[in-house]
Amino acid sequence: MSNIRVGMIGYKFMGKAHSNAYRALPMFFPNVTRPQMVAICGRDAAGLEQARAQFGWENGETDWRKLVTRDDIDVVDINAPSDAHKEIAIAAAEAGKHIFCEKPLALNLADSIEMLNAAEKAGVKHMVGFNYRFAPAVQLAKKLIEEGRIGKIYHFRGFFLQDWIVDPQFPLVWRLQKEIAGSGSHGDLGAHVIDMARFLVGEFSEVIGMSETFVKERPLPTEMTGLSAKGDKDAPKGPVTVDDATVFLARFADGALGSIEATRFAPGHRCTNSFEINGSKGSIKFDFERVNELEVYFTDDAADVQGFRRVLATDAAHAYSEHWWPAGHTIGYEHTFTHEMVEFMNAITENRQPVPNFVDGVECQAVLEAVDKSIAERRWVAISELR
Amino acid sequence: MSNIRVGMIGYKFMGKAHSNAYRALPMFFPNVTRPQMVAICGRDAAGLEQARAQFGWENGETDWRKLVTRDDIDVVDINAPSDAHKEIAIAAAEAGKHIFCEKPLALNLADSIEMLNAAEKAGVKHMVGFNYRFAPAVQLAKKLIEEGRIGKIYHFRGFFLQDWIVDPQFPLVWRLQKEIAGSGSHGDLGAHVIDMARFLVGEFSEVIGMSETFVKERPLPTEMTGLSAKGDKDAPKGPVTVDDATVFLARFADGALGSIEATRFAPGHRCTNSFEINGSKGSIKFDFERVNELEVYFTDDAADVQGFRRVLATDAAHAYSEHWWPAGHTIGYEHTFTHEMVEFMNAITENRQPVPNFVDGVECQAVLEAVDKSIAERRWVAISELR
Amino acid sequence: MSNIRVGMIGYKFMGKAHSNAYRALPMFFPNVTRPQMVAICGRDAAGLEQARAQFGWENGETDWRKLVTRDDIDVVDINAPSDAHKEIAIAAAEAGKHIFCEKPLALNLADSIEMLNAAEKAGVKHMVGFNYRFAPAVQLAKKLIEEGRIGKIYHFRGFFLQDWIVDPQFPLVWRLQKEIAGSGSHGDLGAHVIDMARFLVGEFSEVIGMSETFVKERPLPTEMTGLSAKGDKDAPKGPVTVDDATVFLARFADGALGSIEATRFAPGHRCTNSFEINGSKGSIKFDFERVNELEVYFTDDAADVQGFRRVLATDAAHAYSEHWWPAGHTIGYEHTFTHEMVEFMNAITENRQPVPNFVDGVECQAVLEAVDKSIAERRWVAISELR
Amino acid sequence: MSNIRVGMIGYKFMGKAHSNAYRALPMFFPNVTRPQMVAICGRDAAGLEQARAQFGWENGETDWRKLVTRDDIDVVDINAPSDAHKEIAIAAAEAGKHIFCEKPLALNLADSIEMLNAAEKAGVKHMVGFNYRFAPAVQLAKKLIEEGRIGKIYHFRGFFLQDWIVDPQFPLVWRLQKEIAGSGSHGDLGAHVIDMARFLVGEFSEVIGMSETFVKERPLPTEMTGLSAKGDKDAPKGPVTVDDATVFLARFADGALGSIEATRFAPGHRCTNSFEINGSKGSIKFDFERVNELEVYFTDDAADVQGFRRVLATDAAHAYSEHWWPAGHTIGYEHTFTHEMVEFMNAITENRQPVPNFVDGVECQAVLEAVDKSIAERRWVAISELR
Repeated sequence: MSNIRVGMIGYKFMGKAHSNAYRALPMFFPNVTRPQMVAICGRDAAGLEQARAQFGWENGETDWRKLVTRDDIDVVDINAPSDAHKEIAIAAAEAGKHIFCEKPLALNLADSIEMLNAAEKAGVKHMVGFNYRFAPAVQLAKKLIEEGRIGKIYHFRGFFLQDWIVDPQFPLVWRLQKEIAGSGSHGDLGAHVIDMARFLVGEFSEVIGMSETFVKERPLPTEMTGLSAKGDKDAPKGPVTVDDATVFLARFADGALGSIEATRFAPGHRCTNSFEINGSKGSIKFDFERVNELEVYFTDDAADVQGFRRVLATDAAHAYSEHWWPAGHTIGYEHTFTHEMVEFMNAITENRQPVPNFVDGVECQAVLEAVDKSIAERRWVAISELR
Repeated sequence: MSNIRVGMIGYKFMGKAHSNAYRALPMFFPNVTRPQMVAICGRDAAGLEQARAQFGWENGETDWRKLVTRDDIDVVDINAPSDAHKEIAIAAAEAGKHIFCEKPLALNLADSIEMLNAAEKAGVKHMVGFNYRFAPAVQLAKKLIEEGRIGKIYHFRGFFLQDWIVDPQFPLVWRLQKEIAGSGSHGDLGAHVIDMARFLVGEFSEVIGMSETFVKERPLPTEMTGLSAKGDKDAPKGPVTVDDATVFLARFADGALGSIEATRFAPGHRCTNSFEINGSKGSIKFDFERVNELEVYFTDDAADVQGFRRVLATDAAHAYSEHWWPAGHTIGYEHTFTHEMVEFMNAITENRQPVPNFVDGVECQAVLEAVDKSIAERRWVAISELR
Repeated sequence: MSNIRVGMIGYKFMGKAHSNAYRALPMFFPNVTRPQMVAICGRDAAGLEQARAQFGWENGETDWRKLVTRDDIDVVDINAPSDAHKEIAIAAAEAGKHIFCEKPLALNLADSIEMLNAAEKAGVKHMVGFNYRFAPAVQLAKKLIEEGRIGKIYHFRGFFLQDWIVDPQFPLVWRLQKEIAGSGSHGDLGAHVIDMARFLVGEFSEVIGMSETFVKERPLPTEMTGLSAKGDKDAPKGPVTVDDATVFLARFADGALGSIEATRFAPGHRCTNSFEINGSKGSIKFDFERVNELEVYFTDDAADVQGFRRVLATDAAHAYSEHWWPAGHTIGYEHTFTHEMVEFMNAITENRQPVPNFVDGVECQAVLEAVDKSIAERRWVAISELR
Repeated sequence: MSNIRVGMIGYKFMGKAHSNAYRALPMFFPNVTRPQMVAICGRDAAGLEQARAQFGWENGETDWRKLVTRDDIDVVDINAPSDAHKEIAIAAAEAGKHIFCEKPLALNLADSIEMLNAAEKAGVKHMVGFNYRFAPAVQLAKKLIEEGRIGKIYHFRGFFLQDWIVDPQFPLVWRLQKEIAGSGSHGDLGAHVIDMARFLVGEFSEVIGMSETFVKERPLPTEMTGLSAKGDKDAPKGPVTVDDATVFLARFADGALGSIEATRFAPGHRCTNSFEINGSKGSIKFDFERVNELEVYFTDDAADVQGFRRVLATDAAHAYSEHWWPAGHTIGYEHTFTHEMVEFMNAITENRQPVPNFVDGVECQAVLEAVDKSIAERRWVAISELR
């Protein structure tokens, strides 16, 4: 099959991560149809050109409307700010392009459903960027669960803990403003945990949550580049309008109990995206800060040597690993994206929907909104109320 | 001061643990007023005599009513089944004895308040057995918080995970029957986490929870001794009437968010009584399976060497440690009880109430019941509703 | 059987540890013949009396010669300074008493052989205090090896790392003076590792080592009590005459390779007595700072879930554990001594030699001296050269 | 500056790793002079062409003699089998090309010195592939040591543990044949540890070692591709002619004691390249299986919170990290090579020798041979004897 020609919108953090994945793919997965980095798109011409040259795209494009209708692209990869996802995705679908869209799929459930409908109507492939599914250790968790080696699942405990805004002098960046970011830790971090739970445990049934903004005002930023920002503690302050932390309880359709927490106020946790699952035959633990490892426990181990095993998921027996380095040689965060793009390219080649796709984006959004509703109304909310 | 003369009711798990503490105390804490093991009480004369001889008590007594009125005791230590706590404690108070009562203080909040009132009216000392407070690592956590070294607390995450009834063939022991045990994992395990949260974070404001009984019927036990039991999978079954797991969210009076879970369905966790606290200046982690360790993180560490420290709380700088062994030589679970009894003896000697006392037992019970109510009524319940 | 009546010489660190073990034994091991704490012996009458009362011995004795010939004792337990071991042990043997002797058995190999010969000639039971063998986790290691579950052993790596004299101002305590202590880290810490290797791997064949005294002069102590000392940095200095660290290579009779290190200059290690063993079918790791845990790896685990298991050796399947607390409730360092005394009492009752006994003390001494010789002569030394 | 034009010889494991580094460099280090992937060289035309296309090189070349004299390359990168290093490197030097050579620099010390002399005579830049130096966590270790934050170094403990040939049926691949591989675990794995010790602690003074081949015969391989091989247990057997394990003691010029072990017989260790350093002011631990982490201990931490800190070396304060992803987002093994090439490109641009260079290759070889000599002659060997 000939190359799959990609046009990508956005060139910041996720744009860099996606570009890196596209570059790695032909080298490490030579049997996968090759993504061709045809065009990158951004509004600022100078920044765009720098990114284009640095990341290795053939062309730059400053108008996304032009990009999505270019004849020489097959795929639109959307990394633009969340508030732009819907319009671009629908236009891409109407132009008959396959779509990769970063999470969150949209700012709200209604929009995400519209996007899904547009993509399905157009008959294009659609994928959503829940990259953590693609860590080999997480793939191992999935395999163990699917093969019944953990048994019936009783508990899911998921956390996404960060600490980058604990300092109250950290400035009021756009991620802390609701009108731009849509949500705070809940939508940014919690969404990943929700997707992980759906991937491994199954559908949510009902939820109830609480959230808090611990630091209610922050100095306005004096400079803001990429993910970092500089402030001045004597600068005028503005209100933080998103949640610093959101915690919720969940019941899953299959009877498991879940508790999920997302916070940016957990000192010492740079990026603890972790979970534990307890089943009738064993348990599984994962912590993204040790992305190559999975801890596994089996109830049927011999009575005198029962204990959590630290599995380094770099053996030939682990997903994707043979494409990389010998056993024991770890890979980094970045290749969750490479694996994600392997799935996307393969799905297009095999003419099937990739997983996770917009349906997963929609379902995640439904859970996020059910939690929001449960907070607002101080009651349990069934996911079915939202659909 | 002369010895403090103890009469103890109950000789099973907790009776063994308390006896061990009383025996250790004069050897390791020679400056503390000595507890004299005057009399042990239990209904079964043969079992009692065996325990008396084995544990080293001077006398045996089969009627607790006699015990509590003996002239030669100063203290009544209540390890009897929970449903007997109230009657004994009130009688002991009326007899003018100081009272140590195992947790849970009573089967319900009303009873626990009655006990508190009786003890206060009688002017006796009263203590409740939240022994985990007395691990040196937990004492270190308390010290760090009190000295402001963790800053303002944002998060409390507490878990008590066990796995002893995951096998559905495990028989229907009395702990799984509500009429005898009062509660399941919530009252048994969750109570410890609630007390830990109160000790370290402060008072609860409101809660909402969920609970589940995953295995609803179990074979009736054919033999039951102490904590273990034998069953027969073909034996007739009876209903499990307590919770296998209870999870709840909490808001604390000072603004922190909490999530608390107690379960007996977490394979690989024999006794994971663990918590993490995140504050504005640092974080703390504890896991009872590594009772001598505390993990601590400070935001003001030098930028290139920030990370959780594994502190082995056996140095001279740590509470109680100089009474035991040189630095690096760990102590076991059992000495949380020894330290608890140090506090009890010292409080009596110094004529002050020990901590934790019946007030703490009452407050813990209030939180437990607020959670129960929140489950029954599927809504947030303020602790104040219960008082 | 009637009680086994004990007379103990020495009342410092080891005297405290042994007393605690004797006190714990009847309570936790009621079926073991009971040690009766008949008499404790020390030279300083006041200190002795305090210890006697605190530890719970019936009588005090200031002359060890009287103690060893008392009619009312069956066992002499020797915790006196190492340079007194030989004379006492031989006198005790001649008096027909069973002997427990702390490690090191003697100051040198010749003396230790003399002690062994005296005990064997007298036909008494003799035991040496390698207490670390008796941690349940170490017993599990032994069991796995004996059952062939680790296969043929290829590697032993053993370390005993401490840090209490890293500060060059720490005073010149007696443990740093060769004429009193006999040896430094090698005899004090290395001896434990050598015994562990003999216990788990088998006999040493040949060794070569190196040692160093990093801080060659230290201030003379102004005060010295038990294990701690106070100094004054302006105090006059004296020479350190023992090794701060000794490291050696070993070949075992069965073909395994060993490396063993003892040091008091490893900051952050309060008491890291650790080892790893690699065999043809698996590996084992132990660290005394986590005395309840053993890490175990098996080559025949399923290919996708291979990893070191963290086994908490507190289950019913683990040695001694049923005598203590429920699974997951850890015990401390101190009960390695309790288990040691269980073995001693049982051996006397069953009329067999306990293990480890003076033969083990002699063999350990032979390895220690072979290492010393290899350092002095800068060459490999076979253990057989010493015997 | 214009691109630095690279010609690379070898396209297996290291060829893949280097290619990946060259590809990553312009994207993540845009300010570093760009390596241009001009030509890749290998003997098998078909395999070469596949690698060329997959790795992204402009040209293929089957004769290394042609490659090293091409006008359009500035750098020769040598990944060919070790026995070819010398001839190629000298030819490259004579052709005036800068040289990157994988470790081991040569099959023996004499050859490596010849290579160094040739490169120095030609005035070209030369670098040797000790990639582990370039992990950010190792760079942090170096920084802490250089800044005196660990104090004077007392101990170095280094291990490189693998387990890929524990199965005695694993076939006799070329790495187990001395005539091809030169050395076994010592030269392959031990070399990395020796370089790490030289990097962090300083020069070796004298050494003594032992080595063993545990499985002396293995089935001849029926198929061998890359790093893996297939065998047949009934195949004829051949002798293993290299060491399975080598362990040695070392004294460093500055007085530190070292112990170093390399083995392929450590089940559960896929790639444990680890070390610990103890100094007068603190300690450092590293394990390559957790390449993003460094454990650090400081003696001057407050007395109640002393403990090893787990530092995740992904913060802005850590070397290279700002070029990758936000804090907490780990990188993999592969980027030790990327950083290595950053150093190489920068050194060429700045007209200075890169570090580590052939001098380091020579010194490492001298230590390796001193160990071999110490094993053969069963005595301590000073490194100076070899030079």
